[in-house]
Amino acid sequence: MTDWLDAVQWDERGLVPVIAQERVSHDVLMFAWMNREALARTVELGEAVYWSRSRQRLWRKGEESGHVQKVHELRLDCDHDVLLLNVEQLGQPAGEATIACHTGRHSCFFELYRDGAWVSVEPVLKDPERIYK
Amino acid sequence: MTDWLDAVQWDERGLVPVIAQERVSHDVLMFAWMNREALARTVELGEAVYWSRSRQRLWRKGEESGHVQKVHELRLDCDHDVLLLNVEQLGQPAGEATIACHTGRHSCFFELYRDGAWVSVEPVLKDPERIYK
Repeated sequence: MTDWLDAVQWDERGLVPVIAQERVSHDVLMFAWMNREALARTVELGEAVYWSRSRQRLWRKGEESGHVQKVHELRLDCDHDVLLLNVEQLGQPAGEATIACHTGRHSCFFELYRDGAWVSVEPVLKDPERIYK
Repeated sequence: MTDWLDAVQWDERGLVPVIAQERVSHDVLMFAWMNREALARTVELGEAVYWSRSRQRLWRKGEESGHVQKVHELRLDCDHDVLLLNVEQLGQPAGEATIACHTGRHSCFFELYRDGAWVSVEPVLKDPERIYK
C-alpha cells in the first residue's frame, strides 16, 4: 500500500499540489494541497481530503459546507509531483450548479484578467453565511 | 500595469502555481509555476511563459519543442494565489491530438491510480527525441 504513495514526489514540506476538476462540466473547481496522509485517506474514503496549510490539519472537503467531492479518478503527472482529481461535486440539489468555492461560487477561478485588472465574472450561488452556519 | 501583478499572492519564493487547461478539449494539460516577470511576459505575448525552477530561468513554453500555448483567458482564484490559463495548444497539424507534455503525450496527467498502483494510460504521440532535436 505504500509503494504508490512513495512514488509521489512530496515537496520539502511533505506536500503535493492538487487540482480538482469536475467530472461532468470539466471545469477546474479548485486547487489545494495534500500530504501523504491526506492522499491515503482520499483513496480510502473515495472523497477528497486535503491538507489545510492555514489550519495545519487534514481537511475533508465539505466537512463544514457539505460540499463533498466524490473522487472518480486520481492522476499523477509526468514528474510525479502534481495530482489531478476527477470529482463529482456534491452538496447541491440535482440539476443545480455545484459549489466548490468557499465564496459560494461554482469554481474558485472566478477572477478574469481583462485590460490590466482582475474582474469577478462568476455569480455567488449561495451566501457563504448560509454555507458555514 | 503593476496593480494587477501586485494583486497576486506570490509565495515565499516569489512564485505562483499555474494550471494550463486546453480551450477546446477542456483537458488539464500541465501544471507549472510563474514569477512576476513570467506572468507579465505571458500577458504581453499572449503566450504562456513559465518560471523553470530546475533551470532557474524564464521558459517560454514551446521554445524548444514548438509546443507553444496561446493564452485565451487568464484567471486567478479566490485566494489570489493560483492561476488558471485557458490555452490553445499549438505545435501539431490541425485535427491531430495536441502535445503538451515533454514525454510526447497530450497531457502531463497520464498516470492513473488503479488498485494501489500508478498506471500509464495515455499514448506517446511523438517520440521526445524527435521533439527535442
